[in-house]
Amino acid sequence: MKYLHTMVRVTDLEASLDFYCNNLGLVEVRRKEVPAGRFTLVFLAAPGDKAGELELTWNWDPEEYTGGRNFGHLAYAVDDIYGLCQKLMDAGVTINRPPRDGHMAFVRSPDGISIELIQKGDDLPATEPWLSMPNEGSW
Amino acid sequence: MKYLHTMVRVTDLEASLDFYCNNLGLVEVRRKEVPAGRFTLVFLAAPGDKAGELELTWNWDPEEYTGGRNFGHLAYAVDDIYGLCQKLMDAGVTINRPPRDGHMAFVRSPDGISIELIQKGDDLPATEPWLSMPNEGSW
Repeated sequence: MKYLHTMVRVTDLEASLDFYCNNLGLVEVRRKEVPAGRFTLVFLAAPGDKAGELELTWNWDPEEYTGGRNFGHLAYAVDDIYGLCQKLMDAGVTINRPPRDGHMAFVRSPDGISIELIQKGDDLPATEPWLSMPNEGSW
Repeated sequence: MKYLHTMVRVTDLEASLDFYCNNLGLVEVRRKEVPAGRFTLVFLAAPGDKAGELELTWNWDPEEYTGGRNFGHLAYAVDDIYGLCQKLMDAGVTINRPPRDGHMAFVRSPDGISIELIQKGDDLPATEPWLSMPNEGSW
C-alpha cells in the first residue's frame, strides 16, 4: 500500500498554480485535460521529492469552494522557512501563523486550503520581523 | 522541500483508528498526547511506504466535523482492490464508488473524508459482484 496524493478543488487554475508553484515552490509533474468531463487535473509535487503529490482539480464550469473542519491541512518541510515566508508575503500571501519560533508557519491557498510549513532540521534562530509578528485570521 | 502529511480532524479516535488501521490497513507510526491543549495527534502511514503520513487530530472536547468542497480526497495505491473493498464491506463500510473497472474505488472515513483506492499495476479483470454494484452516496 502506498500514499499517492491529496486532491483539492480549485476555482481558478492560474491563481492556484501561481500560489502553489511560483510562490510556494511546488512543481508541475503532469497534467490531464478531460474535455468530455469539462475538467483539468494538474499534479504537483515538491521539487526533489516527488513521492507525495498534490492533485488540483479544476472544473471548467465555475464553482465556488468553501472549507470544512474535517480536513485540517497539508504539511511540507522547507529549507528556509523565513526566506519562503518573505517570498510569500512579497507575493501578497497572508502569513496566518508567522514562524515566530523559526519552526512552523501556516498560510492558505486561494481556495482556503491550510498549508503548514515546517523548517527542515533544526529550528532557525528566532528573529525579527517574525518574532513579533501577530497571527492573522485562522489556519 | 518535502511533502510531510495531510491532517484531518476526527471526532472519535477509536472509530477512526478502526477505520484507517483495522479496515483500510494503515499503521500507526507515532502518537503525541498534549494534555495542556487537550488533544492527541496520531500519525498513520501505509505499511512498507511511510513517506506520506496521515495525521489524525483528536480534540478531547467533543466537536462535530463536516466537510467542504475545497478538499477532495486522499488517494492510496492498494495491492488488491477487490480484497480490500470486500474487507471494508464486511466491516460495515459503504463502498461509495465500487471498483467496477478493477481500477478505482471510493469510500469515506467516519468523519466524511473521501478516500480513493487505486489498484497497483494493471487493473484487475472486471468481475462480480463489483461489476454490477451501483454507486451509493457521493465521494
